[in-house]
Amino acid sequence: MGEIIRGKPVADRITEEVKLSVEKLKNAGLFPKLAILRVGNDPSDLAYERGALTRMEKCGIEAEVFELSDDVSEDSLISHLEYISDRQDINGILIFRPLPGHLDENRIKHFISPEKDVDCFSPANVAKILEGDKTGFSPATPSAVMEILKFYHIDLQGKHCVVLGRSMVVGKPLSMLLLGQHATVTICHSKTKDLKNICRMADVLIAAVGRAKMVDESFVKEGAIVIDVGINSDDEGNLIGDVDFESCIDKASMITPVPGGVGSVTTSVLAQHVLKACEVSSFFPGH
Amino acid sequence: MGEIIRGKPVADRITEEVKLSVEKLKNAGLFPKLAILRVGNDPSDLAYERGALTRMEKCGIEAEVFELSDDVSEDSLISHLEYISDRQDINGILIFRPLPGHLDENRIKHFISPEKDVDCFSPANVAKILEGDKTGFSPATPSAVMEILKFYHIDLQGKHCVVLGRSMVVGKPLSMLLLGQHATVTICHSKTKDLKNICRMADVLIAAVGRAKMVDESFVKEGAIVIDVGINSDDEGNLIGDVDFESCIDKASMITPVPGGVGSVTTSVLAQHVLKACEVSSFFPGH
Repeated sequence: MGEIIRGKPVADRITEEVKLSVEKLKNAGLFPKLAILRVGNDPSDLAYERGALTRMEKCGIEAEVFELSDDVSEDSLISHLEYISDRQDINGILIFRPLPGHLDENRIKHFISPEKDVDCFSPANVAKILEGDKTGFSPATPSAVMEILKFYHIDLQGKHCVVLGRSMVVGKPLSMLLLGQHATVTICHSKTKDLKNICRMADVLIAAVGRAKMVDESFVKEGAIVIDVGINSDDEGNLIGDVDFESCIDKASMITPVPGGVGSVTTSVLAQHVLKACEVSSFFPGH
Repeated sequence: MGEIIRGKPVADRITEEVKLSVEKLKNAGLFPKLAILRVGNDPSDLAYERGALTRMEKCGIEAEVFELSDDVSEDSLISHLEYISDRQDINGILIFRPLPGHLDENRIKHFISPEKDVDCFSPANVAKILEGDKTGFSPATPSAVMEILKFYHIDLQGKHCVVLGRSMVVGKPLSMLLLGQHATVTICHSKTKDLKNICRMADVLIAAVGRAKMVDESFVKEGAIVIDVGINSDDEGNLIGDVDFESCIDKASMITPVPGGVGSVTTSVLAQHVLKACEVSSFFPGH
């Protein structure tokens, strides 16, 4: 029976570390602060926002929410973004995406300051992901996966990681982060042939497809590590991962649960990024 | 015995297509033009430059070379880059890299206009590679590989492509381009364990590691397609690929030679990109 590797101890440790660093910054007169820019009132945005605000408070990071109505014009949104980017007291900016359809993300993303872009919206940070340049900010969910792997001492060098899913939110950036840790990386998706056989090669199998319980034990090599990034809900509104946990737990050597796995680490990664943004801005003021 | 798939017919067809499109542009009063910015006199830069100039002439594309001494200051190089980026008569800019060590590419790359950045130096274009956004410019070599695969009717959907090498010049961007054609992609590198077995899974095996004749028949599945991106030279200065051609040709169903393979397609891809840049600038003047 595999070890259940939960997100909470990971989040707790990161929170503790960030909190200590924030205290040091405060003693030096620096007060890290996150701005959350939300368009509309999507329930999942609101849920994440509550979690993020709680986490920032635990870390001693200030937060300010900018709420715009869901019929906001693109120019007005950009003005807000420029205003927040220019604010000296704000170090990090999180914008909930996807934005409503009338707003062109491909235009808007150019107006966030890359130095404050703690959730990897700006092309400057997206480019750094491909380049393996760690001075940028990777998106929260792939970063959370990496933190879990690190916390549980899973050495990735030379390991074969199979990533199920090729989204810009998880699959593609995560593949680049794994590659940066010297893993061999295979990226699978809906068009992959012989999917089970490829997944069964994985030392580390990461599911990020958004299909409830798609991955059962027939995808898993004996002793593999299984990371479930899926967040699906059943008819009763319960959270369900992409992995059929009960089916896989005997074969896997380690497995993350849903809920209580990757999702519980994302807000602490966000806090970590705000801290980093504040530290960098204090080294390079004016940036 | 596998089919030898050469680059020349691919380059010839692209050249012919670009030439026809350039003629149409000229009839509409538009004259596509490439600027080549070269620092120093590296022999391989000069060789590529000659090839590029010949290709542009065949395509009816003007070209202008800006030569800077290899002790040019960073600020002076940036001034040149800004000047060229601003020139209305220039549509595409190629800068030879790597630049001499005293020049910070990570700073300089922000000063090339993304719309003229035909060899993917700007972070805006690097980001588009990861995003799969085809409005940008991918680097010449990975694009040349994709053109060869297209020309020889190699359908990538669902195929397992194994890329040997994770450089920013070939391996990483190529992996993203293959993914964009719905291939399943595995990225291998020097730290990969069990390399031969992974390579033997490949329907399409692409070698871009820079180690002469590293890939022999023991890496190749019967019937696989083998693409050799390597450019190494032996003691007598002969070009040698990463693939041991003689060893692999019987097992492969198709194989590119070196020289005469991928390398012969890069300048025609460059011409294609200059054409695209000119067409886009005519649709969106002022960009």
